[in-house]
Amino acid sequence: MTRTLYSLCGASRARLFSPHCWKVVMALAHKGLDFEEVALTFTEIPEVGKGASATVPFLKDGETIVSDSFAIARYLDEIYPDRPSLFKGEGGIALSRMVEGWSQTQLHPAIARIALLDIHDILDEQNKAYFRASREKSFGKPLESVVADRAAEEAAFPGRLQPLRHMLKFQNFIGGDTPLFADYIVFGALQWLRVTSSLEFMAKDDPVMIWFDRCLDLHDCRGRAVSLS
Amino acid sequence: MTRTLYSLCGASRARLFSPHCWKVVMALAHKGLDFEEVALTFTEIPEVGKGASATVPFLKDGETIVSDSFAIARYLDEIYPDRPSLFKGEGGIALSRMVEGWSQTQLHPAIARIALLDIHDILDEQNKAYFRASREKSFGKPLESVVADRAAEEAAFPGRLQPLRHMLKFQNFIGGDTPLFADYIVFGALQWLRVTSSLEFMAKDDPVMIWFDRCLDLHDCRGRAVSLS
Repeated sequence: MTRTLYSLCGASRARLFSPHCWKVVMALAHKGLDFEEVALTFTEIPEVGKGASATVPFLKDGETIVSDSFAIARYLDEIYPDRPSLFKGEGGIALSRMVEGWSQTQLHPAIARIALLDIHDILDEQNKAYFRASREKSFGKPLESVVADRAAEEAAFPGRLQPLRHMLKFQNFIGGDTPLFADYIVFGALQWLRVTSSLEFMAKDDPVMIWFDRCLDLHDCRGRAVSLS
Repeated sequence: MTRTLYSLCGASRARLFSPHCWKVVMALAHKGLDFEEVALTFTEIPEVGKGASATVPFLKDGETIVSDSFAIARYLDEIYPDRPSLFKGEGGIALSRMVEGWSQTQLHPAIARIALLDIHDILDEQNKAYFRASREKSFGKPLESVVADRAAEEAAFPGRLQPLRHMLKFQNFIGGDTPLFADYIVFGALQWLRVTSSLEFMAKDDPVMIWFDRCLDLHDCRGRAVSLS
């Protein structure tokens, strides 16, 4: 059976940067499932995804197609129950929505205000045009204006991670002693920033960065197998 | 066997306001366990807690004494496994630390900047003096200065609850279809604000307030059984 994950890349096919796709890459690695990753640019998604999914990530698992990172994680835990769980129980599934809520409403917008122009810059010419038009429409202003206060956003970013720092006083991962999908949700956000821009503004000895390094080491350093240029 | 929860009150013994004590009240009700609640003022805690706990909440369950709200919830799930779970699995336990981290680092400080003077005002004279001295030392400024931007804090407060609002697009409680300890963690924060001050500045039709009302209705409206004056 072939298993294919369709994900997102920049001008370089090896520069895989979507936070949601990274959640799924880590989830598949966590389950120990082999897969081929097919990286698409934004403008390739409609053609390749036609009839399957309008967005990435989407997973073709034999005859089954699943899209949306959370749905894919739930699917993997249901279909492959004998492999390491991504949620460890009903409580873990339910509370992961809260972690997703925190990551998507508190971290993602801040990352956009730091890295939106950098994301644009890693795309090829056709995708640069698509990205600028679609993002300027949704933000209601030029990309350059979205990142105008980048320095202030970077200064405020460590403070946004306080919930994670509190958790790390008690355990090594959001999942406890070992990671769960909830870790990959937050990892995906920081990996998005790392791959498109930089995390260099974060202090190396910040417990959050030590946790992030632990995540990069997981599953044979899966998160390090990506091009940063 | 007698079961006694030591909690916190204002000048009125019926004005029970500690967020951490409310987490435990809801956890005990969730487990269907009878208990007596002994409400203490701040200055009574050292004498009553002597040899047992320096802080409230603490629970005397027969001969066992447990303090700290998270530890009490874990204790209850371990000792009474046949009653409804507060965590629903290892994942639920681990991820509850993240919800606690969010509530305590994002909501609690904001609530202090809204309600700190109101909390002072519901105490008796002796406790007013204790509270002012201890809080002014920890904040490094007069109570009046902590709440100086109260209007701006109230205006920003709905935005802080975005993670909860995201979760509520998918399910009725942080715990899924039914509440778990993670709900009581966040409930405790908003109940603290409701009992000491007011939540009137929140829109009635905000999904967060609809969730909060659902929480107030739980366990025979346990959260409504409190004096607001």
